[in-house]
Formats: sequence, structure tokens, C-alpha cells
Amino acid sequence: MKRLWDKGAGIDEVVHHFTVGDDPILDRELLYWDCIGSAAHARGLVTAGLLDEKQCGDLLAALHDLAELAQRGELTIPPELEDGHTLIESELEKRIGEAGRRIHAGRSRNDQIATAMRLWMRSATLEMLDALSTFMTALRGRIADDGDTPVPGFTHMQPAMPSSVGQWLHALFEAGLEQMRAGLDLLSRLDSCPLGTGAGFGVSLNLDRAHTAELLGFSGPQRSPIDVQNSRGRKERYFVRVAVDVGALIEKLACDCMLLFSPPLALIGLPDEFTTGSSIMPQKRNPDVLELMRARGAAMRSLETELNWVTAKLPSSYHRDLQLTKRPTLRAANEALGLLDVATRVVLAFTLNHDRLRDAMIPELYATEAAFELVRGGTPFRDAYREVAARIKAGALKAPARAEAGLADPDALNEALSEFEALALRTHEVRDRVRQAEFAIFSPD
Amino acid sequence: MKRLWDKGAGIDEVVHHFTVGDDPILDRELLYWDCIGSAAHARGLVTAGLLDEKQCGDLLAALHDLAELAQRGELTIPPELEDGHTLIESELEKRIGEAGRRIHAGRSRNDQIATAMRLWMRSATLEMLDALSTFMTALRGRIADDGDTPVPGFTHMQPAMPSSVGQWLHALFEAGLEQMRAGLDLLSRLDSCPLGTGAGFGVSLNLDRAHTAELLGFSGPQRSPIDVQNSRGRKERYFVRVAVDVGALIEKLACDCMLLFSPPLALIGLPDEFTTGSSIMPQKRNPDVLELMRARGAAMRSLETELNWVTAKLPSSYHRDLQLTKRPTLRAANEALGLLDVATRVVLAFTLNHDRLRDAMIPELYATEAAFELVRGGTPFRDAYREVAARIKAGALKAPARAEAGLADPDALNEALSEFEALALRTHEVRDRVRQAEFAIFSPD
Amino acid sequence: MKRLWDKGAGIDEVVHHFTVGDDPILDRELLYWDCIGSAAHARGLVTAGLLDEKQCGDLLAALHDLAELAQRGELTIPPELEDGHTLIESELEKRIGEAGRRIHAGRSRNDQIATAMRLWMRSATLEMLDALSTFMTALRGRIADDGDTPVPGFTHMQPAMPSSVGQWLHALFEAGLEQMRAGLDLLSRLDSCPLGTGAGFGVSLNLDRAHTAELLGFSGPQRSPIDVQNSRGRKERYFVRVAVDVGALIEKLACDCMLLFSPPLALIGLPDEFTTGSSIMPQKRNPDVLELMRARGAAMRSLETELNWVTAKLPSSYHRDLQLTKRPTLRAANEALGLLDVATRVVLAFTLNHDRLRDAMIPELYATEAAFELVRGGTPFRDAYREVAARIKAGALKAPARAEAGLADPDALNEALSEFEALALRTHEVRDRVRQAEFAIFSPD
Amino acid sequence: MKRLWDKGAGIDEVVHHFTVGDDPILDRELLYWDCIGSAAHARGLVTAGLLDEKQCGDLLAALHDLAELAQRGELTIPPELEDGHTLIESELEKRIGEAGRRIHAGRSRNDQIATAMRLWMRSATLEMLDALSTFMTALRGRIADDGDTPVPGFTHMQPAMPSSVGQWLHALFEAGLEQMRAGLDLLSRLDSCPLGTGAGFGVSLNLDRAHTAELLGFSGPQRSPIDVQNSRGRKERYFVRVAVDVGALIEKLACDCMLLFSPPLALIGLPDEFTTGSSIMPQKRNPDVLELMRARGAAMRSLETELNWVTAKLPSSYHRDLQLTKRPTLRAANEALGLLDVATRVVLAFTLNHDRLRDAMIPELYATEAAFELVRGGTPFRDAYREVAARIKAGALKAPARAEAGLADPDALNEALSEFEALALRTHEVRDRVRQAEFAIFSPD
Repeated sequence: MKRLWDKGAGIDEVVHHFTVGDDPILDRELLYWDCIGSAAHARGLVTAGLLDEKQCGDLLAALHDLAELAQRGELTIPPELEDGHTLIESELEKRIGEAGRRIHAGRSRNDQIATAMRLWMRSATLEMLDALSTFMTALRGRIADDGDTPVPGFTHMQPAMPSSVGQWLHALFEAGLEQMRAGLDLLSRLDSCPLGTGAGFGVSLNLDRAHTAELLGFSGPQRSPIDVQNSRGRKERYFVRVAVDVGALIEKLACDCMLLFSPPLALIGLPDEFTTGSSIMPQKRNPDVLELMRARGAAMRSLETELNWVTAKLPSSYHRDLQLTKRPTLRAANEALGLLDVATRVVLAFTLNHDRLRDAMIPELYATEAAFELVRGGTPFRDAYREVAARIKAGALKAPARAEAGLADPDALNEALSEFEALALRTHEVRDRVRQAEFAIFSPD
Repeated sequence: MKRLWDKGAGIDEVVHHFTVGDDPILDRELLYWDCIGSAAHARGLVTAGLLDEKQCGDLLAALHDLAELAQRGELTIPPELEDGHTLIESELEKRIGEAGRRIHAGRSRNDQIATAMRLWMRSATLEMLDALSTFMTALRGRIADDGDTPVPGFTHMQPAMPSSVGQWLHALFEAGLEQMRAGLDLLSRLDSCPLGTGAGFGVSLNLDRAHTAELLGFSGPQRSPIDVQNSRGRKERYFVRVAVDVGALIEKLACDCMLLFSPPLALIGLPDEFTTGSSIMPQKRNPDVLELMRARGAAMRSLETELNWVTAKLPSSYHRDLQLTKRPTLRAANEALGLLDVATRVVLAFTLNHDRLRDAMIPELYATEAAFELVRGGTPFRDAYREVAARIKAGALKAPARAEAGLADPDALNEALSEFEALALRTHEVRDRVRQAEFAIFSPD
Repeated sequence: MKRLWDKGAGIDEVVHHFTVGDDPILDRELLYWDCIGSAAHARGLVTAGLLDEKQCGDLLAALHDLAELAQRGELTIPPELEDGHTLIESELEKRIGEAGRRIHAGRSRNDQIATAMRLWMRSATLEMLDALSTFMTALRGRIADDGDTPVPGFTHMQPAMPSSVGQWLHALFEAGLEQMRAGLDLLSRLDSCPLGTGAGFGVSLNLDRAHTAELLGFSGPQRSPIDVQNSRGRKERYFVRVAVDVGALIEKLACDCMLLFSPPLALIGLPDEFTTGSSIMPQKRNPDVLELMRARGAAMRSLETELNWVTAKLPSSYHRDLQLTKRPTLRAANEALGLLDVATRVVLAFTLNHDRLRDAMIPELYATEAAFELVRGGTPFRDAYREVAARIKAGALKAPARAEAGLADPDALNEALSEFEALALRTHEVRDRVRQAEFAIFSPD
Repeated sequence: MKRLWDKGAGIDEVVHHFTVGDDPILDRELLYWDCIGSAAHARGLVTAGLLDEKQCGDLLAALHDLAELAQRGELTIPPELEDGHTLIESELEKRIGEAGRRIHAGRSRNDQIATAMRLWMRSATLEMLDALSTFMTALRGRIADDGDTPVPGFTHMQPAMPSSVGQWLHALFEAGLEQMRAGLDLLSRLDSCPLGTGAGFGVSLNLDRAHTAELLGFSGPQRSPIDVQNSRGRKERYFVRVAVDVGALIEKLACDCMLLFSPPLALIGLPDEFTTGSSIMPQKRNPDVLELMRARGAAMRSLETELNWVTAKLPSSYHRDLQLTKRPTLRAANEALGLLDVATRVVLAFTLNHDRLRDAMIPELYATEAAFELVRGGTPFRDAYREVAARIKAGALKAPARAEAGLADPDALNEALSEFEALALRTHEVRDRVRQAEFAIFSPD
């Protein structure tokens, strides 16, 4: 057997190469999950009376073996086999004969890949949430250590009002919390099992879909077979968006650091081992790491666009176009994880130039405070505003530098930290549940 | 007073026209919400001791009046006033004098617009969910009426397996459910109040933010002042994505209908009053409505892109760029509502060409069923597959046309309908809660 | 008559409203060009023997009249008439009776709108080139006045090497030249006439397409009738890209100015009437105009995306989707013209803070010069680089401040200015030719 | 030496890995061109008196050797060397000592990579034009063989008017011509040499830039050093757009073929070796190749978007972000070439189902012809239109099936074929000129 649908006719090699595309490479990352999904399907076939216990045992043992090879990266997909599904069925047949030819009963590559991708996305979401927690823990540490250090707050790239390291990093922490919530919402969206829907119109073989869904750690089956196919690209889009939003968060951190780092401001520094040099200018120390965080964070958005181009304007059900949903999805996870990793190191490493920070807290930053003082004394705000504007024009602004101005609100911060704990806990619960199911899949008690 | 920051210097008219942009038009849709937000702020100023009851009463009466004018579309923004905020403060001063000059104490246009947009997005989300429910109710009706009518299931645009009207529309119904869940997730993301964060670095005027948040029907204040500004564009992106996904759902419905409508297939029809003609070909009846559902649904994605272009690569805090987040956000809601409206009519109106549908259920559709019959008899699937392929080649496929093949699973469908009820109920609860708050805002007990 | 294809059946009002969309508004900008195209078609019908001279004269007079009304904005399109084409045919029939019912012989709205859009795009391209020339003339003026003023050259947002106002603005001038070349390439792409291709499959009425093409100032007819329809969206994409690239040029100018303007650098200033204030911070003077140039320039890219969404994945020939190509195309021109206008004023108005500029020319900028001095003395570059790096580390860098370092190369600049003249001349020639044709269209000999 | 800017400090390994990114892989495709550019620079240093003939000879020999290794794919870039530029300088130093340390005099990696990319893009454009010619030659062949076969012309996916294979493929041929023109315009845009502009602010070492530009086959140097850096991303965008437009052309061909191929229409067929099967449905023969042409053609647009995200909102001059312009540019060429290759095979291979084509030429297609007959007899068109509409309603339309209706206009087609020859000739001239320069670069006579 070569291709699963091989009926003896030849194939044009250019066409074959074009249709196979990157699958032999991309599917390597999916093989492990395909083995997991296949194990659940094999166990389901027993319940449906289409496989005996012995055959199922052989299949599970062989799939377990393949899963481990896959995890170690030792399973490669020869291009003539088209994709990972074909490799697995072919390996099973080679290893255990007839049982291998039985496993595709009641399934199609259409529900098989949907299942593998769903499992992969669930796992990758948990991995992103993990990396996000680590990043946020670094933010929390810097807030604890340096939160009270005053920094000018900038609007329009101009010094505007008194702020602080804590107030700044608290904002990024809140954006991180929003991403954690989004990640948990995403896990709910991914929590239904495509297995047992066949090519996209159901299977008349008495499969117990609720059972296989449970085996795989899902709350239940994805109800509509056509929607299983229609949701390819849709579920991926949800996934990619969470990754893209992580990218946007790191992009903002990078832009903030660029502003504070760049001379003559130079309010923060980077250790030498975080900067790079010029091949021609001996004096340069450049924040390339920040520039690439900005650029890679920004560019991730094109992955959502790529996904949309692939799936747009398609009628319901399966089309070969859907194959191309894999690349941007896998790449999005990769980019998000790389960005979180390097961003965590940047948060831990940047230094504060205290002298310059002190000089930067110029009197003009407190102009609004001056107006508020008048307001507290009874002046209508708009009148106070004009009064202070006049003082500034006359060079007579006395800055009421209030030490506490611009500090992060401690109650708000504590509330945020508590929410972080709660969300991290919920994430761990999901992780424990699904890991347990995945771990147990090859071993029917 | 003209501009709120007017200090007597002139302004370049080209520059002024350019910076003001579309605000005088866009802000008209936001004026009502700005009045609501302003009322909450006024009541908060009383609690903070910066306004007396009488002044507050005057402000509330005037704001109520302006809100009603805004709702009737009778409030226009002269370009020289820049934006809606300026119009409101200017109208208040004109109507009630000093109290009007007091209202901006402790707020900035930065938190004011964030509040107005948050309120607008909350309301528009509820409106989209409403229109979505109506659309899904139409789907439910067609499933009940015509669900059992057999239709070929297509993959790769080719007839593939037996399916049915019910199985098809159930898939779209599930996509609708996913959008309802997304809409409710969105409501959570929007459920925090920006008011009281000033220009983006907090306000030292003892404002009770929890109180004003409650007055506006929010669960609580948005904790970080810098994040309030950073979340402009981010919250809008969440909103626009839900609208874009509604567009993608309608796009898919349109592509399905195009496929089934187009001759020579012509499995479904459209009433004459839904089709249009050609200026040159007297015989044509064209499904322009479907083509425009496809094109407008697809094109909505560029609104998310537009939003991203505006906000990308900005450091933390306010930048004037954020002004441009309004246009794509407002337009997204408009497009989504228009698409849902017309799609509901299409769902209710399309007709079934029963003769053609019967002819379309060709024997080849049942080839997989034939293989399954062999599987049920003990043949390994891959062998059964090859056996049936050989029969087809020999022209000897006898189709085991099973009447129930391709019907929607009734249990799955019922579960979906129940979930619909539950989600609709949750939506109504949120709506009741926030409408009540909005209604009560002008009348302190 | 209402709709051109009206055959007596009714229409669903929601569907009608949805399909008509923005056409009654957008088509107002196209009416003038539709009259021009219709005049050419009428004259072509005479040559084809399908209209007599008298009827043609009546049509031309009526069309001329309508064109003038359109230019003055006095022609509105009632929604029940669908679009501008319908309005014109209906007005002609109303004014001159039978001849009006003859004008649609041998044409379809499909080639009619393609012709009107082609004429509009040709004209709008010339308008953009005009505005671009004005912008470049402003750049040229600043280079002449301030070119020799030294400015640090920044890389990675860090001071890097000596540069100058002239070297900086010369770069933007070159980008402008590239856009002029692109604009002229675009005019070639637009230089073929769609008229006479009917609904998209040719017309069997002996129309002399070369003649009508010439009347409209085109080099010849667009050869393939199907390509006329396929090129809707394609020609528009070429157009929008030129506008988008103008946006990107202004975006870069804005980012440069933001960097040089922002304190504490503040190397350039803006006159008071170009900045705006804060509603809460009395001290602020913000460069909103620069921020909006950045944001609007950046966001224009979504117009190309919108256009692509509309036309992607369509088979050959006309689809109603194409109607939606008009909006992003018209908006792109509008945005580009607005940006060029305000950018020209900014170029003319920004001031140089000479004291700060002097201070900014720090010795480190000349480190590469120091290495080059060693190289001129025979040291291999990489050794010289390390030598200078060591000196910097030891605080012993003596800067060989060369006054001419970083000046724009005068020969290169002159060559650029000559090219500008040549391109401007070519533009004028095209403009003269097409304006003459457009002017003469209503008056046969 | 490791990194060119190494001054002894360490580097954080995560940061290093992140900043290096994909460069070691992507730069492999650029190494060859970097050797070419380096050879020109070496020869320029002789003219500038900074290198003697012997050193130059050694450098050219070593670079020639490296170029050949690169072309055979035998040169790999160890990640610790960062990029291809570093590898080359390091290899040169290893092979020929001091001369290797001299080569970087007067250049920076900034102009070095701009030069290598410019050379690569010029070469890749020629390759795309070559593949496009092959594709168009296939179209020409099919037009010659099958041009007169009647096919219904579709609008709105509905049969509309008589057309033909020739009229259809002529439209695609015209779109191909437009891409050839665009490719030649692109070659002009790429025809200026970045070498000698250093880090982006010029080089004070008396380099003869006109000479090195000539050596590399360019018309002249790119005049403005800052614009050399600013044009990174801009020139790439021009390049990617041409590739994207090739993708859009193939996408349209695919959508046309899908429409004509899909049953029950099935007007065209594909040989068995061009279709694929289903893993579950034994009867299926799917046009996966067409679906993937559609999807990959459509998805290429995201490469332009990716490029835009990387370069947007950057001030003038070099930023590390620019490194990320390489990936989408290289990938765009790859995709375009793959699509043209497979599309050429599809054009040559699709078959015509003559029986079905005959049946498809239904009388309604000729309704407009019937109206034209009345027009030729003197009836105003709008009256003729209504008359024919009435006949259709009454079932009394007699179709005046004109054999020549819908054929491609032979004069127009011939003109297109002549233009093809002319454009192909111009392409060959450019190719000959640049290949000759590239070939001669290592051997100063």
C-alpha cells in the first residue's frame, strides 16, 4: 500500500509533490497526537463489536510504540506516503497485519486529522498558558522589587504625568491576565471530540462517540459531523488569535522598553549580553532583541490572515484547502512560545538608571496635580485648568510633587495577583485532567 | 470655549480638519453613551465631595436631555468642536453654567471615550446576540420543517455521501452556538469600567471607582489606569472578531446556497423577489443577495486588520492614533447586523426543488455504506474499501440506500437546541441587568 | 422604469436595500465619468449604424448637462434606482425619450461600470501625482534651505553616524520619485478601454472599439471581454497599492518627525498651530498631526486587504461581489490626497532647534570615521574596528569631526532633482492628452 | 572571531538564538549572491586604493570558490556565526588571512545584505518571468488546439452567454501579459545598486559606486544611502506583489476549472493521475490539485501582509526588524514558482467533455443575441430587451444560435500573442545582460 485510496492508477509526480506539500514535515509534530486519537478509535471499535480484544491490544501496543518514536522525533514520513495518517496505518499493517487493516473502519482522514489537531491545540494552549504564567511571574517579581520607582508616564511619546515601574508593569500584568482568561475560554472551545464523524456526514457503525470522547479527556463529542469539518480553520483561528494576542502583548512590552532605553532618555538599560553590535560602527550597542520582539510580535498577525485566506469562501464540509490550516497554526504556537521565553528574560534583566529617572521627573509632570489642588479648594476644573495653563506660560508653575502620585494602586494590584493565582489553578486542573487521559489511553485497565 | 484645551493660540485649519477626521460623524453614535458615562461621573463627583447635590441634579437633567436628543439623532457636532466630548461639555456649560465647568474634574477625554466605547460595545454585543438568536430561530424552524429531506453531502465540491437539510442546517446552527458562546465571553471581557482613570495614570481625587462602575452596570472598575488606555484597540479587537466571525458564518451559508442554487444542480430555489436581473440579458435571474452575503461577510475581516494597523507598535498609554479605532469597530457591528438580517430572510425563504433533490441522490453516494456492510460482516475496512472500489470499476455497485443515512442525529440536535435556550437565557439576564442600570443612571433615588 | 432589468415582479425590500448597499452614495462620485463613457458609447452607436446623428446629438447634450450636474454634486441617486447607471438611463429617457431607450444597445452595466471606474482611476492617479509633486516640491525647498544642517543619523533608534537634514530629506525625496514612477506605470496599466465588451463575452453589433477607445483618450481597447471583468479588482488593486505606498511614505515621514520631535531629544519643533492639547493636562502640546499621519498611513493597507477579500476565489467573469470593489478604491484616493496635503504643510512648517542639534552631534557618531582614518593609513578594516572599539572602552576616542560627513551627495541630489523634472513632465503630457479627450467628448467635431 | 562586532563580552544564549532566528537557514539561499556582491566590493576597493591587485585576486578566487560551494548547497552557517555575512568574512580570513580582514572596509552588513537581496530578487524575478512564459505558452497551445470549442459563459455562477475555450483562455493569457509587464516594471525598480552606502549614511572612503554598480549589471548606484535602508521592505514589497499576483492568476484558473469540472456540470475532466481519492469513500476522484492551487494562490497574499507588519511604523534607516523581510520574500518566490509549474501541467492536461459541452449550450444563452437582432432591425434596445423577456416568459424564445458567438476575437488574440513575443524578448535581453555581469564578476581580465 502507498496511498490509502490507491486503486492502482499512477500519479503525476509534480502534482503529487504539489498536493503533498509540507505535510511530511508538519505532520511529524502531529504524529504523536494521531497515535493517541487512533488508540481511542481502536478502543471504540471494540465497543462497537468491530474489533476483538486481542486485535485491540495489538493495535494499542503498536500505537504506543509509534507514539514514543514520534515523541523522540524518530518517525519520518516518506513523501510517497502523503501524510502522517498513511504512515500510521501503513506501519500498523506492517507490524500487526490484519488488525492494521481494520483500524480505519468508521473513520476517515477527515475526522482523524480533526481529532489530532484538536488534541495538539489543547496541548499547545496549555503550553502557552504555562509560558505566560512564567512571564507573569517575572513581571510580579519586578513589581515587588522595583514597583515604587518613579517613572514619567508618557502619552503621545511625550512626558505627561508621574507614573512608576509598578504602575507600568501592572498594566502589562493585566494584559497577561486577559490572555489567561482568553486561553481558558479557548480550552472550552476546544473541548469537544471530532472522532466518529467520518468523512463529515456521520458513520452508520454504531460507534459510541461519548465513550471515545471521554477516553480522550473531552467533555463530549462534537455534535454535528458537518460542523466538525466546518470548524477546521474556525477552531484554529481561535487558537491562532490567542497566540497572536500574546505576540501583541510582547510587542507592546518591546515598544515600551525601546522608548525607555533609547538615548538620550536611557531610563532603563540592558546587560551587555542582551545587546548586539554593528559590523562597522565600533561604538554601537543595539537593542536588537527588543526590535525583534516588536517585529516578530507584530508579524504574527499575518498567521491569522494566512489561515483566513485558506478557509474563506468555502462551502460546508471538507475541501483539500483545509490541509493548509496546519502550517500557520503550528507556527503561531512556536512564535508565541519563543516570544514569551525571551520576554521573560528581558523582564528579569533590564536595569533601572536611577540617576536619569530622578532627573526625568520634571515639574511639568505635576501640572494636573496642581489643577486638582485648586479643584479640591472648590474651583471648577475647567477654570483650574486655565489657571494652571496661565501659570505655566508665566513660568510660575510650582510642582506639588506628591511622592505617591503614579504609584500602582495596591488594592488593585493585590486583586490582580489573586486572580492570577485563581486562573493558574484552573489551568492546572485542566492540564491534570487531560494529561491523565492522554497517559491512560494506551492501557485499557 | 471651542476646544477643551484651548489656550488662545490659533490652529492651522488643514491640520485641524485632518486631526478631527470623521469624529463629528462617528461620535454621533457615541454621544448617547457619553451622556450615560458622564452621568455616572457626575454622581461620583458628589461622593468625592467635589460637586453638591444641586449641581449634580442640574447636570443629570441636562445630560438626560442631551441623551434623548442624541438618541433621536438631533445632536450634531460642529467640526470646530473637535468631538462629542467637547460638544457635551460645551452644551452643559451653555445650559447650566458653572456645574458644566466642574464635570471634567478627575476625568480626561482618555477615560471618557474608553467608557463611552465600552458601554457602546456592550450594547452592540447584546444587539448582535439578539440578531443571532433570530437567525438561529429561523434555522431551527427550517430544520423542524424540512430536516429529513435528503440532500447529497458534498466534499471537494463533489457529491460524496448522503446527507439531509437537517444535517446541513444543524452544522450552521452549531456555528451559531459557538458565536453565542463567543458573544458571552466577549461580554465578560467588556465587563469592567474605565471611568476614573483619568489620562491614564490615575486620579488623586478620591473617586470611588467601584461605585461608578456599579452605577453603570459593570462588575467593577478596570484596575490598571495604563491598561485602560492599552486596552483600547484590544477590547475593540475582541468585539470586532465576534462580528467578523458572524460574517464568516453568513459567508459559509451563502457559499452553501450558491452551490445548491446554481444550475444545473439547482437543488434549492429563491423566490423571484430575492433575485435580480441583468441590464442586457433578459433571461437572467441572479442570486446577487447570496454573492453579496459572501463578499461582505468575507470583506469584514479587513476591519480587524484596519484596527490592528492603527494600534500596532505603539508603546503603552494614550496616543492620538487610538482615535481611529472607532471607525472599524462601529462599522463591524453595522455589517454584522445587516448580514444577520438578510441571512435570516434567506433561510426562511429558500425553496427546495424536490424533484431535483430526488434525482441527485445517486447510488455512488452510498459506496461507503456498501463498504460498511462488508465491515459489519467481518471484513477489515481496507479490504472492504478495495472490494467496493472494484465493484464500482466493474459497474456492479448496488447501492444499499438507507433512508436514515445522513439524517441529523436527533439526540445531538436536541442537545444543541437546549444549549441554545440556555445561552439565550444567559444573554437576557445580562441584558436586563445592564439596561436597568443604564435606565436608572439619570435618576438618583 | 425602475430597475433596468425590471420585468414586473416585486422585490423584497430588505434584500433590495442590502444589495444596493452604498451604491447610491459611491456612484455619485462616478456619475460624471459614467456620462463621459456614455457619450463615447453614443458616438460609437452612430458609427455602428444603430443611432442617427440627431439622436446622438440629443444624447450628448443631455449627457453633458447631467455631467455638469454631477460635477456640481447636484445629481442624487434615489435608492429605488439601484445605481448611477440606472439613474442616467432613466434621466435620458425622461429628457429625450426614445434615444434614451437606445443607448444601452451593445453595452451592459458590466462594461459601463468598468469604463467609468477606469476613467475615474486615471483621473485620480493624475490627481495623486499632482499632490505628490507638491509634496516633493516642499521637500526640495527644505533641502535647499536647510540641507547642510547636521543631524545625528539614527539606527535601531540610537544615534549612529553623522547625517544631515539634506541627507534625510533626500531619502524621502527618492521614495517620492519611486512613487511617481509607480504612478506612471499605473497609468500604463489603466490605459486600455473596457467599453464595447458588453456583459463580458463580447457584443455582436459591429461596434468600432478602437474608435471609442480613442475618443476616451485610451491607447486602445482592452482586448479580452472576459478579462475586462476579471480585471475589475485587479486594476483597482494596482491603483490602491500606489495610494497605499503614498501612505507608507507619509507614515515614515511621521515616524521620523516623532523621533526627532519627542523630548528630551526635541531636535525639531512644530509651530503651535500644528499641535493640540490635553483636556486634563494643562502643560501638554502634542503632535497629534504626526500620530494621525502615522496611523492613517499605516491603516490604508487594510484597503488593499478589503479589495482582495472581495475579489478572491472568484471564477472568471462578472459576479455581484465586484460591486464592493468601489468603496476601498475611492477611499484610498481620498486618504492618500488628505495625507499628502497635510504632510506638505508639515514639511514646510517644522522648525530646527539648532542648539539641541549642535549638542546632539556627539563624538561617538564619528567612531566609524576614526576607523576609516586607520584604514586610509593601511590598517585592515577589521583590525581598525577593534582598535577604535578599544579606544572607546578606554575613553580615549578623539572624534575626527569632519564637517562634510553625512551631507547629501550633491551629484546624487541633482540627478534626483532632474529625474523629478522629467517625471513631472511626463505626467503633464499624459494629463494634457486625457483632459483634452474628456473635454471634447460631448462635442463631435 | 565569532560575531563581526565581537568585543569580548559574552552573550545570553536564549537572546542570541532568538535574534539569529532563521538566518542560518534563509541566508543559505543568499550566500551565492553575497559572494557576487563581495567580489564587486573587493574590486571597488582596488580602485579606491585600499587593496592591492594581489589581495583582490586572492579574495576573488576565494569568493568564487565559496560561491560554487553555496550553489551546490555545501556551505552551512553555524548558528554561532549569526548570519551568512559573518560566515563569508570568517571563511575569507581563514583562507587568505589579512585580505579577509580588509574586505569590510567601507561597507556594512547593512549595504551588504541590501545588495545580496537586490541581486537575489533580480534573479528570482527573471526566474518567475521564465516560468510565467512557460505557463503562457501552454495557454497559447490550448487556444490553438481547442479555442473554437463552445463553452457557456458564466456570470454569477449561472450560464449567461455563449463563450468558448479560446475566449476563456485568452482572458487568462491577458492576465499573464499584465504580469509580464509588471515583472518588467519590477526589474526597473530593482535596477539600482545599494553597494557603497555603508551603514546607511554614506562612506567617506572614495569608493567609485558607479563602477561597482556597473560590475554587478545595474544601471547605476541607488543614490540616497538612507533610502537604501528605507527601501528594504519597499523593494521586497514590489517583488512580493508580483509573486502574489501570479498566485491570484493561478487561483482564478483553479476556480474556473473547479466550476467546469464539478458534477453535474463536468464540462472538463482531469486525467486520473491528476486526481486523488478518499480514505473512506471508494468512489471519489477529487480535484485536490485545483483546490490547493486555489488555497495556496489565495494564501500568498499573507506574505505581503507579513512583510508590511515587519516594516510598518519604522523611522528611516536601519532597524533589526528588517532582518525579517527575508523570509516572506523568499517564500513568495518559491510559492509562485511551484504554482506556475503545476498550473502549466493542468493547462496541458485538462480534457474537454464534448458531449456535455454540446448539451450545455442551451437556448437561453442566446437571449441577448435575440434582442440584438431586434436592435439591428431598428428597435430601441430597452424595448427589445422587454420583448425578448416576454417571449422567454411565454416559452417562445427561439434561439438564434450563431456559431461565431463567443469566439475569441482573432485580431485581438494575435495582438496579444505579438505582445507576448515582444515582452519575452525584452526579458531575455535583461537576463543576458545581468547573467553576463554575474558570470564575469570573479574574473577581472
